[in-house]
Amino acid sequence: MFLDKIFKKENKEEIQENISKQELITKPLSGFMELLPAEQIVFNQIMDTIRQTYELFGFIPMDNPVLERAEVLLAKAGGETEKQIYRFKKGDTDLAMRFDLTVPLARYVAQNQRDLAFPFKRYSIGKVYRGERAQAGRFREFYQCDIDVIGYEKLDIRFDAEIPSIIYTIFKKLGFDKFTIRINNRKIFNGLFESLKVQEKSAKIMQSIDRMEKMRNLPAGRQVEKVNQELKELGLLEDQISQISKLISLKGNSQEMIKGLKDLGIENEQFEEGVEELKKVSILIQQLGVPESNFIIDATIARGLDYYTGIVYETRLDEYPEIGSVCSGGRYEDLASQYTDRKLPGVGISIGLTRLFDQLLEKGALKTGSATPTKVLVLPMTDNFEKSLQLANKLRKNKISTEVSFNIESKMKKRLGYADKLEIPFSIFIGEDELSKGIYTLKDMKTGEQEELTEENLLKKLSR
Amino acid sequence: MFLDKIFKKENKEEIQENISKQELITKPLSGFMELLPAEQIVFNQIMDTIRQTYELFGFIPMDNPVLERAEVLLAKAGGETEKQIYRFKKGDTDLAMRFDLTVPLARYVAQNQRDLAFPFKRYSIGKVYRGERAQAGRFREFYQCDIDVIGYEKLDIRFDAEIPSIIYTIFKKLGFDKFTIRINNRKIFNGLFESLKVQEKSAKIMQSIDRMEKMRNLPAGRQVEKVNQELKELGLLEDQISQISKLISLKGNSQEMIKGLKDLGIENEQFEEGVEELKKVSILIQQLGVPESNFIIDATIARGLDYYTGIVYETRLDEYPEIGSVCSGGRYEDLASQYTDRKLPGVGISIGLTRLFDQLLEKGALKTGSATPTKVLVLPMTDNFEKSLQLANKLRKNKISTEVSFNIESKMKKRLGYADKLEIPFSIFIGEDELSKGIYTLKDMKTGEQEELTEENLLKKLSR
Repeated sequence: MFLDKIFKKENKEEIQENISKQELITKPLSGFMELLPAEQIVFNQIMDTIRQTYELFGFIPMDNPVLERAEVLLAKAGGETEKQIYRFKKGDTDLAMRFDLTVPLARYVAQNQRDLAFPFKRYSIGKVYRGERAQAGRFREFYQCDIDVIGYEKLDIRFDAEIPSIIYTIFKKLGFDKFTIRINNRKIFNGLFESLKVQEKSAKIMQSIDRMEKMRNLPAGRQVEKVNQELKELGLLEDQISQISKLISLKGNSQEMIKGLKDLGIENEQFEEGVEELKKVSILIQQLGVPESNFIIDATIARGLDYYTGIVYETRLDEYPEIGSVCSGGRYEDLASQYTDRKLPGVGISIGLTRLFDQLLEKGALKTGSATPTKVLVLPMTDNFEKSLQLANKLRKNKISTEVSFNIESKMKKRLGYADKLEIPFSIFIGEDELSKGIYTLKDMKTGEQEELTEENLLKKLSR
Repeated sequence: MFLDKIFKKENKEEIQENISKQELITKPLSGFMELLPAEQIVFNQIMDTIRQTYELFGFIPMDNPVLERAEVLLAKAGGETEKQIYRFKKGDTDLAMRFDLTVPLARYVAQNQRDLAFPFKRYSIGKVYRGERAQAGRFREFYQCDIDVIGYEKLDIRFDAEIPSIIYTIFKKLGFDKFTIRINNRKIFNGLFESLKVQEKSAKIMQSIDRMEKMRNLPAGRQVEKVNQELKELGLLEDQISQISKLISLKGNSQEMIKGLKDLGIENEQFEEGVEELKKVSILIQQLGVPESNFIIDATIARGLDYYTGIVYETRLDEYPEIGSVCSGGRYEDLASQYTDRKLPGVGISIGLTRLFDQLLEKGALKTGSATPTKVLVLPMTDNFEKSLQLANKLRKNKISTEVSFNIESKMKKRLGYADKLEIPFSIFIGEDELSKGIYTLKDMKTGEQEELTEENLLKKLSR
C-alpha cells in the first residue's frame, strides 16, 4: 500500500514485480538534518557550549510544546509565515508546529506573568519548523538557540549591552577568534527618516540598505552608490539621499561612530535618543570585556522591518562572510500584545544552529573526532568477566566513559577494529596475567604504545 | 478570524461585542507539558543525569527528525498507532510526526549501516507524539530517553546484562534507593506454551498475566487465582493451567528463581535456553555491581505481545507502585526488517521521562529549588558599573552563574525581591566602599548573613 504511494510520488512508470525492502526511502526528507555519530557529537558539543553560556549569564531554561493551537501561533504572523507553517487538523483541533521560539515565549509569559520574576531572562533551545521550498543551506526543521530578557512595563537599556558579551563568550568558547558583533539602533533610521519626512518609504529604504550586505564583495563606496541609485528610483530628493548616504557611509570604532553620528547634525529627538543609547551601550560592552576587534557600531544594520524598535545585533564570522549573520536580534517594544494588554518590552538574540553547523561543516571549519563518547574499551581476554566489569565500573565512577567488549568469541582483530572505527582513544586488555597481578595494559589506540599500570595510576592517567 | 474558530470549537453561543486579548487561550493544549522555571530546572537535571549516564556507558548520541514520510514511519505499525499518529499532507508529501524513537532508529541504521560500527550503541532523547485521547497522566507530546545496542547478524547475550546496570546507575544518581529492576525471558513463556501446545492462545494468556500488575494490591495468591480463572475461560485444561500457575507463582532471589524454573521440569529447548540466558545474565548483573535488593527475576513480566523475543525488563519504584514501570524494554530479534534484509538483533530500554516527571511531581517526590541557574546576583549601588561588570565576568570565568542587577533606578527592596522570588542563593553589593577598598559584601539570601570578603576568598567560597 505505502509502496504504491512512493511510486506514484516518484512518478515511476514501471512497477517491478519483486520489490525488495530497500525500496522504502530510508533517507530523511530533504531539509531535515540527520548526522552521523562523529558529526552529531560535535553538534552536541556546540549546543552544550551555547546552553552552558546562557546559564552562566543567569538565563532560565524553557521548553515549550512543538505543537500549538494554530490560531494562537498565527495570531500575529504574516502571510509568508502562514504559507510556510506546518498546519493540520486532528479531530476538531486546528494544530500547527511552531515556526520560531518567540511566539511560544510570548504566549508563555502572557499565561504565567503572575508566577514569573521580571526582568524575566529565559533561554530556549529547540527545533522549529518551516515548510519552505527546500534549497541548499535551507532547513525545514532546525534548531534555534534563543535568549530573551523581558521587562514588565519597562526594561533598562543596560540589558541590551549584556547581549553582545554573551555572543562574544559563546563564539570565543567555540574556538572562533575572528568574528564581528555589529550593533546599530533602529531609532537612528527612524529618526532620520522622520527628520527627512520619508517615513512612508522607510520599509523600502531599509530593504535597500539591507541589500548592501549581499554586495559585500564590492568596495564600500560602490555599495553606497547602488543604494543611492535605488533611493533615487524610490523618488527621494537629492538632499534626502545625501543625508542617508552620509549615515550609511560612516566608518570607525565606537567613539568615532558616535562622533560621526552626532556630526551629521540631525535634529530629531528619536535620532538623538538612538545615538545616546548606542553610546551608553557601547561603553558598557567594553566594560564587559568585549574587545574592539570583535565589536563595531555598523550604521547599515537594519534587521527586517517591523519587529525591532531599538538596538539591533548581527554577528558575522570574518573568515566566512558568505554565511551571513550567525547570531542576530534586537530590542522590541512589546513581546505579547496579541495575548495580553500588559506591555512587555524585551531584547533577545537567536542562533540558527542547524544552518550554522551545516555551513561550517561544508566549509571544513569543523574538526570531527571520535564517533563515540567512549574513552576506554575494556577487552576481557578470557571468559572471566568479573575483573573487567569491576574495572569498567570503577572507571565510570571516575567519570571516564567506558565500554566492555563483550564479544569474546570474535577475533581480536575484529574487536580492536571496532575501537579503531569509532576512534576510541584507549583500550585495556584483561587476560590471565592481569587477573593475577593486578596490573593493566593500557594501549593508546592512536600511537599503538602500550603501558603497564596499577589501577591507581590507570585511573589517574585516564582522569586527566 | 481566529477568534471565530475558538468560539466555534468551544461551542459558545453568545459572542461578546468587545473581545479582550486575553480571550486567546494561552494555556498549552491538553496533553502537552509546559513547566514553570523551578520545575523545568529539575526536569533538565533529570534529563542531564540520564544523558550523562548513557554516555558514561559509551552510548552514541543520535538526533532524528520529528517529521518523517508517513509511509516510512508506519511501515510496521499496527492499527492503534495509525489512529494515534499526527499525520498530514504538506503539498504532495504525506507526513507524520514520530510516535517513538525506535522506528527512526531502524530507518537510520538501515540507511547508514555501512558507516556504523557494530555493535552499534546509541542513545536518543527527544520528544515523540501520540494524539491519543487526553486523560490524566497521559501525554500527547512526551520525552523518551532510549538506549539500544544493535548487532550485525548477531548480538552477544552479555549486552543484555549491561542494561540493568545502566538502569541501576541512573536511578541511584536520581536519588532513589528503593526500586526494583525486574527481568524475565520471553523464551520461557514461549517454550512453556510450546510444550503445553497452547501457542495459538499465547497472546491472550500473556495479556492475562500482564494484568497481574494491575492487581498489585491483592495478595500474590489471589492474583494467580484470577489468572487461573481467566485461563479457564480461554479453554485451557486443568494441567495446562497448573503448569502456567506454577511458573507465575515462583518467587525468590536469582538463584532460587533459576532453580525453581529448572525444577518445573519442562522439557523444551526454548524454555531451557531462556533459563540458561537468565542465569548467565543474572550472574553478570551481580558482577556489574547491581545489588540483590534492586534486582529480581520476575516470571510474570511479559511486556506486550510481538516485539520482544528474549530478555525483558521492567523497573518499578517501590514507594510508588501505582506509577507502574518507569523503565522498560528488552531483546528483539530484528530491528529493521521493514527497511533492510540484513538481520539486526538488538536490546534496548526506554524511560518515559515526561510521565515519570509528572507523576513524581504530583506525588511530591521531587524537591524544586531555585527558579534560575543564577548563583549570585551582583548589585551595583552607584552608576559606576565597571567594577560590577568586571566582577561578574570573573565569577563567570570561574563557572559561577552570575547576573547583574542593572535596574539601579529601582528601589533596593524591589531588586532584592527579584533574588528572593527566584531563590538566588547569594547577592553581592558593590557600593563606593567596595569600589575603593576592593572588599566585597556577600549576602546569603537564605540566612541573611553578610560577610566581607576579598575577591580571592569570594571566588573560593562561591566555587565550592
